[in-house]
Amino acid sequence: MDMDLNSDLGESLGLWRMGDDASMLGIVTSANVACGFHAGDPAGILQTLKKAAANGVVVGAHVGYPDLVGFGRRNMDPSSAELVADVIYQIGALQGLAKAAGTEVRYVKPHGALYNTIAHDARQAADVITAILEIDPGLVLMGLAGTPILEWAAERGLRTAAEAFADRAYTEEGTLVSRRAEGAVLHDPEQVAERMLRLVETGEIETISGARVRLAADSICVHGDSPGAVAMARRLRERLEEAGVPLRPFVDALAN
Amino acid sequence: MDMDLNSDLGESLGLWRMGDDASMLGIVTSANVACGFHAGDPAGILQTLKKAAANGVVVGAHVGYPDLVGFGRRNMDPSSAELVADVIYQIGALQGLAKAAGTEVRYVKPHGALYNTIAHDARQAADVITAILEIDPGLVLMGLAGTPILEWAAERGLRTAAEAFADRAYTEEGTLVSRRAEGAVLHDPEQVAERMLRLVETGEIETISGARVRLAADSICVHGDSPGAVAMARRLRERLEEAGVPLRPFVDALAN
Amino acid sequence: MDMDLNSDLGESLGLWRMGDDASMLGIVTSANVACGFHAGDPAGILQTLKKAAANGVVVGAHVGYPDLVGFGRRNMDPSSAELVADVIYQIGALQGLAKAAGTEVRYVKPHGALYNTIAHDARQAADVITAILEIDPGLVLMGLAGTPILEWAAERGLRTAAEAFADRAYTEEGTLVSRRAEGAVLHDPEQVAERMLRLVETGEIETISGARVRLAADSICVHGDSPGAVAMARRLRERLEEAGVPLRPFVDALAN
Amino acid sequence: MDMDLNSDLGESLGLWRMGDDASMLGIVTSANVACGFHAGDPAGILQTLKKAAANGVVVGAHVGYPDLVGFGRRNMDPSSAELVADVIYQIGALQGLAKAAGTEVRYVKPHGALYNTIAHDARQAADVITAILEIDPGLVLMGLAGTPILEWAAERGLRTAAEAFADRAYTEEGTLVSRRAEGAVLHDPEQVAERMLRLVETGEIETISGARVRLAADSICVHGDSPGAVAMARRLRERLEEAGVPLRPFVDALAN
Repeated sequence: MDMDLNSDLGESLGLWRMGDDASMLGIVTSANVACGFHAGDPAGILQTLKKAAANGVVVGAHVGYPDLVGFGRRNMDPSSAELVADVIYQIGALQGLAKAAGTEVRYVKPHGALYNTIAHDARQAADVITAILEIDPGLVLMGLAGTPILEWAAERGLRTAAEAFADRAYTEEGTLVSRRAEGAVLHDPEQVAERMLRLVETGEIETISGARVRLAADSICVHGDSPGAVAMARRLRERLEEAGVPLRPFVDALAN
Repeated sequence: MDMDLNSDLGESLGLWRMGDDASMLGIVTSANVACGFHAGDPAGILQTLKKAAANGVVVGAHVGYPDLVGFGRRNMDPSSAELVADVIYQIGALQGLAKAAGTEVRYVKPHGALYNTIAHDARQAADVITAILEIDPGLVLMGLAGTPILEWAAERGLRTAAEAFADRAYTEEGTLVSRRAEGAVLHDPEQVAERMLRLVETGEIETISGARVRLAADSICVHGDSPGAVAMARRLRERLEEAGVPLRPFVDALAN
Repeated sequence: MDMDLNSDLGESLGLWRMGDDASMLGIVTSANVACGFHAGDPAGILQTLKKAAANGVVVGAHVGYPDLVGFGRRNMDPSSAELVADVIYQIGALQGLAKAAGTEVRYVKPHGALYNTIAHDARQAADVITAILEIDPGLVLMGLAGTPILEWAAERGLRTAAEAFADRAYTEEGTLVSRRAEGAVLHDPEQVAERMLRLVETGEIETISGARVRLAADSICVHGDSPGAVAMARRLRERLEEAGVPLRPFVDALAN
Repeated sequence: MDMDLNSDLGESLGLWRMGDDASMLGIVTSANVACGFHAGDPAGILQTLKKAAANGVVVGAHVGYPDLVGFGRRNMDPSSAELVADVIYQIGALQGLAKAAGTEVRYVKPHGALYNTIAHDARQAADVITAILEIDPGLVLMGLAGTPILEWAAERGLRTAAEAFADRAYTEEGTLVSRRAEGAVLHDPEQVAERMLRLVETGEIETISGARVRLAADSICVHGDSPGAVAMARRLRERLEEAGVPLRPFVDALAN
């Protein structure tokens, strides 16, 4: 009954700052590090990787569409040849920087529009899976709990990890309530911490309607893009620790 | 008394074609493959790598400044932190794609303005050397024969390879005649083939003034950016073969 | 009974060449010039504009999605705020270069995936129309003959021009046969010239099934991306001239 | 005896924020707006332009080298053909967006490494001047007070404006003390405000050695990239207003 906390890091670009990587690397156990396509420049990524290594935080490749202005959040329609190669390129680049930082890439978590697309689009999902298998079949694919990408990946021999979102409301089907709906995003750190603790203890999450639904989660995603977000992540970690839930990288749990 | 032929490949970008990679991969023994900063997109690079693997051609990372419009030929002034990370990023990306293509990156040859700059700029040279050492000290650095970058790299423990240019005139100091000078670029395939054969056989090259100068070359660079260039490269290979000079990748010779 | 010929030009990027602008500017009467988002760099665009000015060819802004690697042919999903501003930015940049070249931008023809999307997607169509109205309501919008974008633009007060494609087969509904269908693309210059001459003379085009359908076209699009394409365009121009069809820019006809 | 305050604005990029444009547009009289090469995306630039228009702040084109990761602060070596076209492209793009925002571009202030380079590099200076003359000879060129670019521009018929930096120390030659030297950057808002008031009143500035030197300044540059910077700019404006110095755009003063 341990748990992993992950967050998107390395998303600055040159002089433009995004998030508080130094603080978050003291909170999370897994870092999804940008690879330069939706965010991140090599020098900034390398800094984040060195801090992750120094903090013993496991590193994953946060691969995205090639779209800095849209921060990888706009849908794109790459061909399979393009998407496979784009994902391999990003993972390889991060592997190189990780080696220089004294660590290594252990998993892949697609970002933004690519993350959402592969949760239901079988073609792009297959391309991402192919890319991972071709560069390193030992990498774990992290995806949204309850979506078919996790099965598609498992069928092709990839290890997978399911993630829950700490600050998001869930439907009775165990999926995320659309951001456009009222109550979709939670803002109270105490409430978030309690919900996640119960998820860890029971394997169930309270839905937006007040019911409970099973949710198999290997990791919980937290944000660090504002002081409030960092405080929420910190409170979640404290609450889990107070309750005796060991925090450790999900890749270590999978390995057992 | 064997020799290596290398060429810059993988330099197309999306729909824009550059060079005749398919033909050149039947001629050269080492391919300097673009890494996306001065040229090359991931899908195109992957195609070139697969053809290189199929032809048994050794692959090197052709790293450059981040400048597509200038094709990496414009001087830039990155900080050391930026240049080190940019080079690692590019090598890593190419290593990833090479693995997917069933081959591996064996050496690094900087491109264009970066190539020229590190031949004499100790700071940027040191950054490139640092980058290679940090990602993989087993990689060989290819540089211009007769320039100090080769010594600087050797002093820090890197293996190096010196290259000569098949179609360029040389000064009595064993350096390239400036492109702006008359006679700097040679156009006759037969003359080029003869010069290079004599270089291989004697270790000397005829200078633009008619004298001879020693030139230690592990590889000869040929171009593939026009039908005439491909024909010149092919004729050089034939001439060397006719004279009984075995063509094999320089990295294999170094390993001995 | 005159006609306009248009072609996509200015699509080189740095050292990468695309098309034969010099030849095409001796054939067409309107030039759709790339604006740097899907293709074209400022120095290359300026050269094409100067040649267009010297040839008396009218200039239009060939605006596209920001996607060099995909050449603007991949669907993207910009917000309205983004798309409006992206289109204004591109038109403005081309206006600036056109002024420096001694000419001016007279119309706008969206490119690639944006062109296809706005033919049927009312939201993105409205964004493009808004952009044109905001920067210069005197610009003409060129779109695919028979698609609603032309009506949407007219309803908002924009002048429009409908274009036919010289080398494409048409359905009985007056729309293009999908490129994936057999016979969708025509390759015989003589056949293409005859079809287009009849279109000019009768206002009808022969469909892929052999029937005839009305097609209101203000301009005919020809390509210049291969020697064969240039020859086809030249033959079309000759055939129209032989038949006494005056070739003149569509914007001049609209102005009457 | 009036004065202009200018600041670099529009430098956000997609989700990445830079500076506090809303606050600064209540302080300055002239806004140097990024054009997308060193910073700024079209939608963000358009927002800044609309706010500038609403505040009656005059707009200038803050043109730079094409280098987002380096924020235009790294030296580059474009050819004349490239630099001329790059500058025209950026000014034209901003003119288009300005028109959509209900305002217009009145001047050009190069950014970062380009700004510093043209202060002393006659070739790149000539290219920037050529670009402005070709797109609109009515635009004013803003440059560093005391540098030859202002004379070079005037000799070719451009109107110019000289700027002083509010928070920088000056040498006895009337040039900026290098950032690397101790005391080069001033941090006390009250001191900065007093120095600038005296500059306005006397046409002289106190040098780092305590002497006084003449400095002809049409505008004072202030920063908005931190809360402290905004407060310093606000204090400077207040101090000038308290002393009865009218704040108005330098372009209006030039017009007299």
